[in-house]
Amino acid sequence: MVNNPYYSQEVHGPYELYDVGNLELEEGGTIRNCQLAYATFGTLNAAKDNAILVPTWYSGTNKIIEQVFIGGARALDPAKYFIIIVNQIGSGLSTSPHNTPLPAGMANFPHVRIGDDVRAQHRLLNERFGINRLELVLGWSMGAEQTYEWAVRFPDAVKRALPFAGTAKTTPHDYIFVRSHEDALKSDPAWNGGFYKHQSDVHVGLRRHAQIWSVMGLCQDFYNKEAWRELGFTSLEDFLHRFWEAYFAPMDPNNLIWMGWKWRHGDVSLHTDGDLKAALGRIKAKTYVVPFSRDMFFPPADCEAEQKLIPNSEFRVIDSLQAHFAMFCLTKSDREQIDACIRDLLAEKVD
Amino acid sequence: MVNNPYYSQEVHGPYELYDVGNLELEEGGTIRNCQLAYATFGTLNAAKDNAILVPTWYSGTNKIIEQVFIGGARALDPAKYFIIIVNQIGSGLSTSPHNTPLPAGMANFPHVRIGDDVRAQHRLLNERFGINRLELVLGWSMGAEQTYEWAVRFPDAVKRALPFAGTAKTTPHDYIFVRSHEDALKSDPAWNGGFYKHQSDVHVGLRRHAQIWSVMGLCQDFYNKEAWRELGFTSLEDFLHRFWEAYFAPMDPNNLIWMGWKWRHGDVSLHTDGDLKAALGRIKAKTYVVPFSRDMFFPPADCEAEQKLIPNSEFRVIDSLQAHFAMFCLTKSDREQIDACIRDLLAEKVD
Repeated sequence: MVNNPYYSQEVHGPYELYDVGNLELEEGGTIRNCQLAYATFGTLNAAKDNAILVPTWYSGTNKIIEQVFIGGARALDPAKYFIIIVNQIGSGLSTSPHNTPLPAGMANFPHVRIGDDVRAQHRLLNERFGINRLELVLGWSMGAEQTYEWAVRFPDAVKRALPFAGTAKTTPHDYIFVRSHEDALKSDPAWNGGFYKHQSDVHVGLRRHAQIWSVMGLCQDFYNKEAWRELGFTSLEDFLHRFWEAYFAPMDPNNLIWMGWKWRHGDVSLHTDGDLKAALGRIKAKTYVVPFSRDMFFPPADCEAEQKLIPNSEFRVIDSLQAHFAMFCLTKSDREQIDACIRDLLAEKVD
Repeated sequence: MVNNPYYSQEVHGPYELYDVGNLELEEGGTIRNCQLAYATFGTLNAAKDNAILVPTWYSGTNKIIEQVFIGGARALDPAKYFIIIVNQIGSGLSTSPHNTPLPAGMANFPHVRIGDDVRAQHRLLNERFGINRLELVLGWSMGAEQTYEWAVRFPDAVKRALPFAGTAKTTPHDYIFVRSHEDALKSDPAWNGGFYKHQSDVHVGLRRHAQIWSVMGLCQDFYNKEAWRELGFTSLEDFLHRFWEAYFAPMDPNNLIWMGWKWRHGDVSLHTDGDLKAALGRIKAKTYVVPFSRDMFFPPADCEAEQKLIPNSEFRVIDSLQAHFAMFCLTKSDREQIDACIRDLLAEKVD
């Protein structure tokens, strides 16, 4: 267990904790008294049919999703919907390597799969709120993985699914790429096999990890056009240090490594003996598959190949210079395109 | 100076060495008695107007170029042309960090720019062969950088220029990407600031460097389609270990780091106070700019932006699943498309 004030109510709150009990993991082992950190917005109606679930992305928490997406003028309007953001296991707010006491914590933390998260979230929604069916599940990147997992695992519980810039089954290219992130963290001798004293001891690894993110997280055009200038940075190095390195600097290396492992092992076809077509064919939700142009993690072609296997689905590409990071809605165009997807899908008639 | 049998006549020969004398470097410092390793094919005619220059790419040597490109049925036909392949400084065959005695060698080796290579090659061609004008300069990747540098620096000495999958000025995305390669090598504590005893001491860094290459050197589709199967590999890990790691394993870490530095600082606009349009406007050669589809280093759009600034030029995209590595001509289609570019350009009437 590592003391880290970054993962706190002060930085990411308000959020609540719910104990889903012992969580048996798909890879073996058990998380005892698994805690999910979640935040809600709006009011659950009497019929309990206005709930929207938003699981978090790699390194993201409920706070950034609240800041970027939720508001009265936005598609995720708390006046109409009951919006539940659940922090994934390993995020640092829910049960994670850094906040689990030894001997089960740090590098002894067990491998967690996307399916484990979704089962835990299912308990939270059922037990805590009595929600049996979601109006919408939406997520970006690792959040899209969880969205797909929800739609395949609990087809009757998901009316609409909106995976942004993510895949139902991790591609081999993403697999090796995400592993290179993990390796960048592990390359720092201070990582010490996962048993360090302070997360900042691993600052060289955290910075190396940030630098690799800077290469593939955006795109060639973003750098060619020096789009970082519009974000307030004054040089390429300024952007790399003050955005990328600063963003990851306070995080826990093991948390990131464990999320990375979960990311690259995402695969809904585990439900169907490796048959991806059969797995995606189980989806009953009306689904929009929405990649971002220029995204190096999830090129539109990779997303479209999956969309074609989903019965009641549409394919929409959001054009953005921000590539994978269009989701941060840093430009008006990104925000409007993303909100339009959410609004249009919510307006679809679904039985 | 590091003993390394990989950089030898046994592995890469036959090649010859030519001493171009002391080479004053653009970044400051001097390489004393700079040696260029080169190999020739065919016969220089009496008019000395049938010479084709091929500079080498990152980590490549004359041998792979001979094996992949030169032959009687090929566009680079030694029955017609006098073909000179020159190994770049830092390649391991020409003067390099590993073969320069201390105190000037290893991590004390000075930074070398593309322009230094081209000036050294110019001396070789003039002094050794009396060649004043080249029928064609062609190169891939870092070889393309040298090709552009030749055409801008010595516009009257280059009749035709054929840069494959490379840029005249390194893009910021390539800059940070190539730097991440260098950092991967340096991340190994055994690198020891560049002063190791044996190159294999740095095997962890060499393997990390290879893994990062595996991510961006190819493309998503290559891995999706498991194209490595056609190359004789039996699994993704088999391909990563037995191709990528094995390829870089015998090389010298400093040589790779110094080539990387040279790569990411490539910029023909140094001739024109940073004005890329003015620099490329100096080119007199008939030029084909030829990127490869799916190339993550050099997306066709980046190459086309430069092509538009070159007066007598054409833009051609080679479609290949091998992405940046189409140049290895692993498929019949790649080989035929590349040979067609060379043949067509050589057939162009140029004054």
